[in-house]
Amino acid sequence: MEFRVLHREERTAARVGQLQTTHGVINTPAFMPVGTQASVKGISPQELREVGAQMILANAYHLYLRPGHELIRELGGLHRFMAWDGPILTDSGGYQVMSLAANCTVTDDGAEFKSHLDGSLHHMTPERSMEIQEALGADVAMVFDECLAFPASREVVEPSMRRTTAWAQRCREVHRRPDQALFGIIQGAHYPDLRQKSAREIVSIGFDGYAIGGVSVGEGKPLMYEMVEYASAELPESSPKYLMGVGLPEDLVECAARGIDLFDCVAPTRHGRTGWLYTTAGRIQIKNAKHIHEEEPIDAACGCYTCRHFSRAYLRHLFISCELFGLRLNTIHNLHMLTQLMREIREAINGDYLDEFRGAFYARRGITLSGDEGIVGSTLGQPTSQRALEVPV
Amino acid sequence: MEFRVLHREERTAARVGQLQTTHGVINTPAFMPVGTQASVKGISPQELREVGAQMILANAYHLYLRPGHELIRELGGLHRFMAWDGPILTDSGGYQVMSLAANCTVTDDGAEFKSHLDGSLHHMTPERSMEIQEALGADVAMVFDECLAFPASREVVEPSMRRTTAWAQRCREVHRRPDQALFGIIQGAHYPDLRQKSAREIVSIGFDGYAIGGVSVGEGKPLMYEMVEYASAELPESSPKYLMGVGLPEDLVECAARGIDLFDCVAPTRHGRTGWLYTTAGRIQIKNAKHIHEEEPIDAACGCYTCRHFSRAYLRHLFISCELFGLRLNTIHNLHMLTQLMREIREAINGDYLDEFRGAFYARRGITLSGDEGIVGSTLGQPTSQRALEVPV
Repeated sequence: MEFRVLHREERTAARVGQLQTTHGVINTPAFMPVGTQASVKGISPQELREVGAQMILANAYHLYLRPGHELIRELGGLHRFMAWDGPILTDSGGYQVMSLAANCTVTDDGAEFKSHLDGSLHHMTPERSMEIQEALGADVAMVFDECLAFPASREVVEPSMRRTTAWAQRCREVHRRPDQALFGIIQGAHYPDLRQKSAREIVSIGFDGYAIGGVSVGEGKPLMYEMVEYASAELPESSPKYLMGVGLPEDLVECAARGIDLFDCVAPTRHGRTGWLYTTAGRIQIKNAKHIHEEEPIDAACGCYTCRHFSRAYLRHLFISCELFGLRLNTIHNLHMLTQLMREIREAINGDYLDEFRGAFYARRGITLSGDEGIVGSTLGQPTSQRALEVPV
Repeated sequence: MEFRVLHREERTAARVGQLQTTHGVINTPAFMPVGTQASVKGISPQELREVGAQMILANAYHLYLRPGHELIRELGGLHRFMAWDGPILTDSGGYQVMSLAANCTVTDDGAEFKSHLDGSLHHMTPERSMEIQEALGADVAMVFDECLAFPASREVVEPSMRRTTAWAQRCREVHRRPDQALFGIIQGAHYPDLRQKSAREIVSIGFDGYAIGGVSVGEGKPLMYEMVEYASAELPESSPKYLMGVGLPEDLVECAARGIDLFDCVAPTRHGRTGWLYTTAGRIQIKNAKHIHEEEPIDAACGCYTCRHFSRAYLRHLFISCELFGLRLNTIHNLHMLTQLMREIREAINGDYLDEFRGAFYARRGITLSGDEGIVGSTLGQPTSQRALEVPV
């Protein structure tokens, strides 16, 4: 894997780059749609290409439990299994083991847990996670880390961080596949000094890229952006920086400005399936009665398959009628909006006008910023209204 | 609308033809996928083209209740609403009023019923059905008829048939749209003489085409095929003959041989969503454990999108994991299998070898016929094993 920074923005920490993987090049900053169980819900590989997806994410925990990583290896690996020949990143499953599984017990050795599917007992270790991810054969594997819920006290975070660092070291030692990159993960909760410490420890082990984990866990946006800023600044400028599980439109703008190169989030797909549709003026809920007669597309400026062919009235009808096709059309639109947003962000970075782009982004949503401050720094202008942002994921 | 018979098979009642509608030409015999609520479940208009669908069906009862025919007219009609520019046929809703709605009371005037969606009271008449179907704007509208459950005694069938004929007359009188054809519907349950009487009455009114209704309601295949044969023989050779609600693979073969030109059925789409997949050797249930490791496609001879890209193992994984994409891939495959079967049937008719084709069709499914008899006639060879046919729709 090779990562090249092509341009650094003058007034922010943002940069555009290119990430070369075994299955192709990703222009960064990029958003990765989530295909947890080897499928981006409702969407074909062909449609993923059409909406502009460059790289997708799958989940080692889910695929280990079902259908099993050995089966996927036997069938030629994840790319062939799901017929997606572009780049894939697999999440290690640390987050899922601790959030989804039952009776999870974490020791220095690893995590013992019961499957959320059938209650069967499993033992996950850094070594096992590497074995699973090598069998899946994604372009990028993630280290196995410990994830904490928010809020967590320093007394909880510090030993957990030590464990995450030790696990990262063990992953580094056993990872073998030369065609697969391995990313380390920074933890440290909402403590700036611990974020810094975690970053230094993980970087000293040495990985192909670095992820910021343990954010967007309920800490709120201002604190999340602050932690991203701290952690990002501690990571080597020559390596890709990946912010895990974050990807609402405003987060993409804010965190690209803080130097993030890769994002993933279930938001656009889950929002699509629950009727929340992205527009350049904010989100709409398609089931609302006001859309009954609307002949226009979701967003007149959008060039996706959905907007080119279907009215809001039709999408509302499909949603109200529980028609499968509606879930897909909504998802296609939301994914297209995010890849289009990333394209615009890359252009703004290349043209050194990301701060102006950010102002216009909020202005289209009816949100004014509280000051004239730039994006990065402790004087960050906060949106005065969270109106257009208050959508549960 | 124009219908031309291009070739009549020598030894059966089968024929190939072309049906010219406002939105295009259909090569017959043809199978119409069902898009009840203005969407063939899970499938895009583009995919309908790719699987070889020539004409689709939508349902006036469902669309009248939701989103309302006035809304669809206002938005430019059904074709534009659902972005399908090919031919559409709308079922009148007679069957749905009597099977789906609650508290249905039928009088000579029409049917009073409560919506299955919200219990609201509605009154449907032949005139109202024509108004609704003209608003929807399909290429072919169906008369409003009374449908009976099986078995029905002669005492019930005779007055019902009189009503259906009177309603057909009223539909004929009020139907106005010159760009929309109107088909009559033959009833008569499982009484050959009543089928004959119904056919003569409906034909004497004069329609652009004729449908055989009230079949596949629990009477069993031998009786169904017999009734289709009687009714089909009574219909004018110069008009299209449409068998309503029938469309399992074996039914298509048997009834094309009896002169049927158009079919519709929810089977391929519903089977797809419930994991029953069609192969040239019969049906498989994709969730069965024996498919866990199967790298091959559903059917090696199939050229559909699903078979070109995905293994049975992947489709099983998607199905077991409740992934939306699996429902769509299964549906694409089943629809493609039926349009491919219709293509082969048309070729067999053109080449005057439909009887041999039928024998080979059953042989591939491990079914031998009880005699050397031809398809049409009272000596019809019945499959000795219903094994491969026993799948609930």
